[in-house]
Formats: sequence, C-alpha cells, structure tokens
Amino acid sequence: MPYVNIKITKEGATKEQKQQLIEGATQLLVDVLGKDPTSLLVVIDEVDTDNWGIAGKSVTELRKQA
Amino acid sequence: MPYVNIKITKEGATKEQKQQLIEGATQLLVDVLGKDPTSLLVVIDEVDTDNWGIAGKSVTELRKQA
Amino acid sequence: MPYVNIKITKEGATKEQKQQLIEGATQLLVDVLGKDPTSLLVVIDEVDTDNWGIAGKSVTELRKQA
Amino acid sequence: MPYVNIKITKEGATKEQKQQLIEGATQLLVDVLGKDPTSLLVVIDEVDTDNWGIAGKSVTELRKQA
Amino acid sequence: MPYVNIKITKEGATKEQKQQLIEGATQLLVDVLGKDPTSLLVVIDEVDTDNWGIAGKSVTELRKQA
Amino acid sequence: MPYVNIKITKEGATKEQKQQLIEGATQLLVDVLGKDPTSLLVVIDEVDTDNWGIAGKSVTELRKQA
Repeated sequence: MPYVNIKITKEGATKEQKQQLIEGATQLLVDVLGKDPTSLLVVIDEVDTDNWGIAGKSVTELRKQA
Repeated sequence: MPYVNIKITKEGATKEQKQQLIEGATQLLVDVLGKDPTSLLVVIDEVDTDNWGIAGKSVTELRKQA
Repeated sequence: MPYVNIKITKEGATKEQKQQLIEGATQLLVDVLGKDPTSLLVVIDEVDTDNWGIAGKSVTELRKQA
Repeated sequence: MPYVNIKITKEGATKEQKQQLIEGATQLLVDVLGKDPTSLLVVIDEVDTDNWGIAGKSVTELRKQA
Repeated sequence: MPYVNIKITKEGATKEQKQQLIEGATQLLVDVLGKDPTSLLVVIDEVDTDNWGIAGKSVTELRKQA
Repeated sequence: MPYVNIKITKEGATKEQKQQLIEGATQLLVDVLGKDPTSLLVVIDEVDTDNWGIAGKSVTELRKQA
C-alpha cells in the first residue's frame, strides 16, 4: 500500500528504465518492510531542466557549464 | 484553505470531468470540515501510463495484459 | 488506482471526519472517472497552523486576528 | 538540503523567471535557516489551467469570467 | 539530483529499516539511470493509519477487519 | 494562487523563522510572477532526521559524522 514518488529531470529516460524504477521501488518496500505489493503505487515525474534547480541554478544552466 | 492533489493516469479525462473533480473535492472539504472554499486549491496531475506503476508494473503494461 | 492527497490544518479533525474524507474522495473518482477503487489511495496530511501560510501569514497569526 | 516545490499555472513563465524563482527560493532558505545551498533542490511544476481549481472553479473558467 | 518521496503508514518502521529504504532508493537511481548520488534526496513520510485510505476505508478500519 | 511546499529537517526552526519562510516565499511569487497573494498557500513540512536521506545516508547519520 505504500506510495513512492520519484522525481527526475526529463532527459531521455526510456520506457524500460522507468519500468525498472517501478519494479525496483516496489521490490524495495517488499524487501525492507514486508509490504504487500498489490496496491503499491509508484509515480515518476519527469521535470524539465529549466524547472529543476540545485544550489540556486537550473539544471539547464548547470549542464551548459559542465 | 485546504489543498487537494489528485493524481490520475493521462488517459483522456475531459475538461468537464476535471471541472467535476475540482467541484467535488471542494464540496467534500466544505461538507465534512466546514472549510471556507475561498482559497481552497485543487491540483490535478495527469501522469503518463509509462510513469505510473501498480504492484511493480507500469499501467502501460497492465493495459496490454487486460 | 488514483492517488489523492488532502492537506488540512491540524485543528481537531476527528477520526470520523477523516473516514468521511477518504470515502468521499474515493467515491468522487469512481463517479467522475469510473475508476476502480481497489487500489485507490487517499492520504490526509494534517499540518500545524504555524507551518501553513495564506497570503503571507501563518494560520496561527490569522486565527489570532479573526 | 531542503526541498522546495513551487506549483504555478502554466501561463507563460519564462526561463528567466523560473531561474529567479530557483535563486530566490534557495536564498530564502539560506537567509532564514542558514542552510547550505549545495544540495538544496527546487522543483517548479507548471500546471494546465484546466487542472487547477480555486474555490471550486478551474482557473480556465475564472480567467473567462475575469 | 533526483528526489524520492516514500509514504508509508506509521506502524513501527525502525531507524534501520528507514536507513535501508534511503540506501535502496538511492542505489536504484544510481543503477538504473546512472545518477550522481551526491545531492540525491530521499524523504520518508510516515502517515497515521487513520489518515491513510485504500478503497474507501482507512487502514485503521482495514486492520480491524483483517 | 500558487502553492509552495518547503520541506526541511525537524531541527528546531522557530515560529518566527517559519513565519519568515511563509512571507519570503509569498513575496517571491509576487515579485517574480506578479501573482496575487490572496490565495497563495505555503506549507512547511518538518521531517525527522531519520526520515531524510542525502547521498544514501540519513541526516541522523550525517550529523554524527560531521
């Protein structure tokens, strides 16, 4: 029954990678807390690099400097 | 003043249905807790079926199997 | 399968009122979008009035002025 | 290390304005709480006006009436 | 730089289990997407069973029936 | 009408500091985007240091090592 929300920047995660995140997060809750996976929800948000900031700069800016 | 966030899969909810969710969620808080609706916010997030997992599978996969 | 998060100030909502919010939010998604309620999650967050602001003031302050 | 999430309606915020929100929110946490900005995250969500409700009406409707 | 939020019911997860959730979620993002863990945040919310609903019932009620 | 959520670790932020966060976040949205503050909500979540992870370790652990 847990709910997991994963926020990443929108930089080309594939359908397969997102399926792996869903499987991995579900398995983690089953393994660590013995949760029933039946109604265990995982929601992945992909956020534009203009809309994600670290240490006061957008990821768009950080990528340019890197 | 409450804040309600509704997350659904992006599968064609119409503008009218989203208006009904906004009205219904607002009315629920007014009815049950007597809240003033003036600054009562409702935000609906529509999530791609690749990005939503239940019981370890993406909704995209679950729809194929159904 | 939807997920609903309701944030209210922590001001004495009873167990019965919270049950009514859970039922009402679930029914709303069933009625408007025909969702299966089986893995429909509702999470209620009760937030201290010091930690909730409207129009730049905490609810604690607003309650004093009212 | 704090995490700040800013939700606004999707009505044309520019890249520069979003950069200002990231800088301002980061600086606020540094100024008020003395937080180290290094792993301070800011995520901006831009929400369709059909999907945002105030006082029971979508912002799309409210804009028409204004 | 990703952000992971894990919501579970407040039913006695230990400090060690929460550490395992933090490690596991961090490793998942490193393994699947090659993310740098440096500013990778994980936040665990423990929610009262009265405040968590599944299929229209609070977990408090569901535990009684089980 | 925007909604701002600030998550910090629960390490003694005072009522005054939280009021400053509410004022500052509200002013930021007014200054940058010209938003009407009337129904502008700010919610501060204070998270136990056991429940907050950075780079795979809980803040509780990181504080011990510091």
